[in-house]
Amino acid sequence: MPGGPLTIWCDLAAPEPALAMLRAGVAPHLLVDGADLAVAQADVAFGRPDADRCAEAERLEWVQLATAGYTAFDRAAVRAAFAKRGARLTSSSSVYAEPCAQHLLAFMLADARQLARSLRHQLGDRAWMSEATRAASYLLRGQTVVVVGFGAIARRLGELLAPFGLEVVAFRRTPHGDEPMPTFGLGALEPWLGRADHVIDVLPASAETAGFFGAARIAAIRRGATFYNVGRGSTVDPAALRRALESGALRAAYLDVTDPEPLPPDDPLWSLPTCVVTPHSAGGHADEYERLVRHFLANLRRHDAGQPLVDQVI
Amino acid sequence: MPGGPLTIWCDLAAPEPALAMLRAGVAPHLLVDGADLAVAQADVAFGRPDADRCAEAERLEWVQLATAGYTAFDRAAVRAAFAKRGARLTSSSSVYAEPCAQHLLAFMLADARQLARSLRHQLGDRAWMSEATRAASYLLRGQTVVVVGFGAIARRLGELLAPFGLEVVAFRRTPHGDEPMPTFGLGALEPWLGRADHVIDVLPASAETAGFFGAARIAAIRRGATFYNVGRGSTVDPAALRRALESGALRAAYLDVTDPEPLPPDDPLWSLPTCVVTPHSAGGHADEYERLVRHFLANLRRHDAGQPLVDQVI
Repeated sequence: MPGGPLTIWCDLAAPEPALAMLRAGVAPHLLVDGADLAVAQADVAFGRPDADRCAEAERLEWVQLATAGYTAFDRAAVRAAFAKRGARLTSSSSVYAEPCAQHLLAFMLADARQLARSLRHQLGDRAWMSEATRAASYLLRGQTVVVVGFGAIARRLGELLAPFGLEVVAFRRTPHGDEPMPTFGLGALEPWLGRADHVIDVLPASAETAGFFGAARIAAIRRGATFYNVGRGSTVDPAALRRALESGALRAAYLDVTDPEPLPPDDPLWSLPTCVVTPHSAGGHADEYERLVRHFLANLRRHDAGQPLVDQVI
Repeated sequence: MPGGPLTIWCDLAAPEPALAMLRAGVAPHLLVDGADLAVAQADVAFGRPDADRCAEAERLEWVQLATAGYTAFDRAAVRAAFAKRGARLTSSSSVYAEPCAQHLLAFMLADARQLARSLRHQLGDRAWMSEATRAASYLLRGQTVVVVGFGAIARRLGELLAPFGLEVVAFRRTPHGDEPMPTFGLGALEPWLGRADHVIDVLPASAETAGFFGAARIAAIRRGATFYNVGRGSTVDPAALRRALESGALRAAYLDVTDPEPLPPDDPLWSLPTCVVTPHSAGGHADEYERLVRHFLANLRRHDAGQPLVDQVI
């Protein structure tokens, strides 16, 4: 390890077993609690450090965020500061791709099998609505799935959907040409919304994506399609979404993220019978902190060896 | 077509578009409403004819059931009567394998993503239980899935589960050796129950399977596993299942079939927070009757051509 042990700043509020794994794994480097040290005095930061402080921290050579998103760092000034001193930014998107993709498929299958309808009856009148439930169910097969925001989640979702025989297309700011499904720029989205059966929002939060699904784009979605959001609540106009659900233009909406969050108890989305809300839990899983730590330690070994890092964004 | 047009008895209570497709598709054979003709006067029967009457109907050469199950026909006397005159019995299991397998995966992912927990909050206190929900969620990955009752549903479920990286093993009365997953006789089940994370009951109803999951077999399931039933309600002792859920021995149960059906409003299973009940809807889907008719017509073409039939059980 050229240059000797690194000082690693960490503010991860992890349970003790994951922290123990982290302490043991970083040796011979020095792990310091983020509460006890300014990030500017560290060589490496792991957790959720402040973007501006990281940009100013001349000594900091690598930041690994414990989140999939990196909105606060995705600004020209921050990117320039990192680039100037050759610092790198990595995310934990490969930790969250699996649970988020599974959450999306859970949403899609819950809609196809009408699980929310059955649970409403279970918690309500306990009516045995066999015929109506069967008729409202449908096969996940042959439909068109439009994924807005291609990344690690969309990639994994494509793998999970492979056995179903669906048409899956993705849209992203700049297609790279190496995506495992047909992928187009966001400018080509509109006609695809008109033939979509499932519209999946996996967009990150940014100035560019704020209100992306406003009244016009929501109106462009094929009548009877289902809308899913595991991206960010800020990407959807909640009033336009509510109107589309109330009018029946959309069959249903499955939202893991809302605007605002938490969704206030008096928000009308809670009471729409065609809207299912989960509390920003799509990325969560029992061994989440262990997987975050393992991902960091694997990148630390690569950093020590001078190898490319996984989930590098700057 | 040697022997001229056949008389086809049918009692399928299908919506008009599916019946129109059936009427057009059977030509030049003669389609007769089951209400207007005894099954004994037909050459072919399609729907849900009485097993004993079919056994006695000397003229009847082929019966296609509009169900996946064929419990009433699965008796020595009926089998002998069919065999004696070379009659054939087919089911519609290939119509129902897809929706039932999707229903099972919907159940598994609903458990992994804690959808019922979130919907209970949505319909109740509207609390935004992000941390608790994330911690109770888990990845569907690396676990052991024990499928009891190998058939078309288990085969399809295995395909849908392939991308998840699970250990899937199946059990059936008589393994054929050509199953696409490790498959053992029911006698070998007990030790596998002890290491299962997911126990999936797809058993048909029969004298042999009545109460199959009684107190002893339920107690043999690994503590903390989840139990699923899309087979038949009669295969499970409901009191033993309830006790296992109440004690926490089982993490949760997802039941599409119950004993009795409909499940009475005062049945305690409805109110267990770890039990999710759907109203025998696993096989249902919007185009169910069309797919039943298509399956029958495809087999009718095979019957006319003297070819083997799909889903033949006798």
